[in-house]
Amino acid sequence: MTYDEIFEARLAELRDEGRYRHFADLSRRAGDFPHALHHAADGAEDVVVWCSNDYLAMGQHPGVIAAMHEALDRAGAGSGGTRNISGTTHDHVVLEAELADLHGKPAALLFTSGYVANEATLSTLQSLLPGAIVFSDALNHASMIAGIRHGVGEKRIWRHNDVEHLDALLRAAPADTPKIVAFESVYSMDGDIAPMAEILEVCERHGALSYLDEVHAVGLYGENGAGIAERDGVMARVDVIEGTLAKAFGVMGGYIAASRALVDAVRGYAPGFIFTTSLAPVLAAGALASVRHVRRTPALRTAHQARAARLKTLLRQAGLPVMPSESHIVPVLVGDPVRCKRISDALLADHRIYVQPINYPTVPRGTERLRFTPSPRHDDALMDRLVEALGDVWRRHDPARAA
Amino acid sequence: MTYDEIFEARLAELRDEGRYRHFADLSRRAGDFPHALHHAADGAEDVVVWCSNDYLAMGQHPGVIAAMHEALDRAGAGSGGTRNISGTTHDHVVLEAELADLHGKPAALLFTSGYVANEATLSTLQSLLPGAIVFSDALNHASMIAGIRHGVGEKRIWRHNDVEHLDALLRAAPADTPKIVAFESVYSMDGDIAPMAEILEVCERHGALSYLDEVHAVGLYGENGAGIAERDGVMARVDVIEGTLAKAFGVMGGYIAASRALVDAVRGYAPGFIFTTSLAPVLAAGALASVRHVRRTPALRTAHQARAARLKTLLRQAGLPVMPSESHIVPVLVGDPVRCKRISDALLADHRIYVQPINYPTVPRGTERLRFTPSPRHDDALMDRLVEALGDVWRRHDPARAA
Repeated sequence: MTYDEIFEARLAELRDEGRYRHFADLSRRAGDFPHALHHAADGAEDVVVWCSNDYLAMGQHPGVIAAMHEALDRAGAGSGGTRNISGTTHDHVVLEAELADLHGKPAALLFTSGYVANEATLSTLQSLLPGAIVFSDALNHASMIAGIRHGVGEKRIWRHNDVEHLDALLRAAPADTPKIVAFESVYSMDGDIAPMAEILEVCERHGALSYLDEVHAVGLYGENGAGIAERDGVMARVDVIEGTLAKAFGVMGGYIAASRALVDAVRGYAPGFIFTTSLAPVLAAGALASVRHVRRTPALRTAHQARAARLKTLLRQAGLPVMPSESHIVPVLVGDPVRCKRISDALLADHRIYVQPINYPTVPRGTERLRFTPSPRHDDALMDRLVEALGDVWRRHDPARAA
Repeated sequence: MTYDEIFEARLAELRDEGRYRHFADLSRRAGDFPHALHHAADGAEDVVVWCSNDYLAMGQHPGVIAAMHEALDRAGAGSGGTRNISGTTHDHVVLEAELADLHGKPAALLFTSGYVANEATLSTLQSLLPGAIVFSDALNHASMIAGIRHGVGEKRIWRHNDVEHLDALLRAAPADTPKIVAFESVYSMDGDIAPMAEILEVCERHGALSYLDEVHAVGLYGENGAGIAERDGVMARVDVIEGTLAKAFGVMGGYIAASRALVDAVRGYAPGFIFTTSLAPVLAAGALASVRHVRRTPALRTAHQARAARLKTLLRQAGLPVMPSESHIVPVLVGDPVRCKRISDALLADHRIYVQPINYPTVPRGTERLRFTPSPRHDDALMDRLVEALGDVWRRHDPARAA
């Protein structure tokens, strides 16, 4: 068997399970979100995107785009180096100060992505804290799992959002051992939210360092858009807040905000931070403009929540199986990878509505779903059209469950 | 001890060893490379940057910047999703086709950085090939080491560029076991180059898959700038070529080019590829313009090599300890982290020349160095000034070794 034959066999597994991924080839059009051009074999056509994480359409905000034009003319394309070797630009320095301030922390550190922020920080914290045990929520994102696995510490998994289970696991660990509790605020595939204050109370009782992934919450919750920890009034009690510049802020990149000592130690020891070209200055400049705008515009958050609430209501009224999300994420259960793909294909082909099927490994097998992310730009007319189209497709592909 | 006290203790180790990293806060100025503005506590001043990996100054090329302006106005800031969930844009599709073509491979795949390309691909290849053993050059980059460590396979380290040792290790492994040989073309800290044809011959003899990191060679070597494998006429024999968009191409991002089956399998199985927001379209558009320009402009490569050759000659004539580099990289040995930092500080303070000290863990302890990366934009006057300044500083800080 050649190597290519082995790879083909692995691809056949994906196809057999109905979870081979076809990427939709899109042209985003600045200012036109959620409309985009979809390139298919037989030509290109206009579609409405319903699954983007550009939650507030900040990726097409004129102020963000203007800041990026300015940075391009001023600084050029790339940074030209790692942060340590000529790749720290003033745009990075100013953005880190802004992010630290947003989260009320002494310091912040940029990474090339939220994935890298989680992987690099969680793995490095384990080396920095000899004997550390990591306590990880069972539904943590793949990037946190990667960081936890790549570290040297022991690992314990606590049942999703189950504070008593976390408490029991922490109690069972030696009192004088460093402990890291890793969890998210908004879980992006179910849309449920962690019981933040209770988790932090348990962390404090057992002297654990709290590591909170707010990537699906920054920009979207709290008076200044600092996330669920801000909304719940517990931001100062979280040791590490991890966020992204690529979702609500609409650009690209990730970060942590924490104490100066923690940030400085990660900066000095994390391979995933040290050995990589820094974010392009143009991205840092765009993110800075976006964070500043989103901080001072709570109306964006109000509109965002209102849109999500309306879509959930409409889908429920249409008898469609909306999952019980507490957040802006609107998942609709299908429960089978092949049917999930078929429904998605039909929405695109018959209604020019693009929503990607979410299959394993992004969600557990048997919970395959469509995941809708309405933004303030998804207006009533688009929403009505979506619900009608989904009802139509659902009746054709899953008559038993349709209303 | 609080967590912060533990972190402070780890930072004290860095300081005690003279390898605590102070990032130079720079403002790049489009069109003005290698000049930049250095922000210090007592104000900002103009410096000449001598350690950037923007090897060809493509990060400030008008054509690249124009392409990015155009993409910003057309597509906006970020991609708004992972590659699978609304984040594949036509800019990604076109750039992947261009990179595949550059390397003469059927397919290519973009990652958010070269670090992630190496980490994700090397770890995933091990899961895709059950029982695989990875054979890694002793001086491979941190990102390859991360990918190799994070995979499930066994590992063997072969002595740097030692083909006989690689051959012996491969011979000792079971014949029917999948084997991955991972190495670089240009080693970025020493500037030496792998004996490519011999390594590939050994790989072929033992049925090993060859994985080649060309991040410090793409754009810079070969008729079309496809790297050392192109220069040496062996490109078709390499199974996986990994490259970056952040060095010679001046933007940001990484990629692999390989067979369609391999690329498709990595695409479908690698967490570091799947679970992260895709490259901002503006970066893909800039990289495309850069790759196309660099491919058709061999004069850039000629000028680049000529500059490096001249600098090596001048430094040698001045009696300075240039390390024996075969490439465009010009390392000068200091051999002590504290003195290395002092020389770098003095160049900056007294001569407005910025070259970062390179200390452990980027290079082995005892081999601390200054690493100069002359571009076609570092002209004779700048070079003469550098050599004079370095001679002056060297006499003051290392009289024993000075000429």
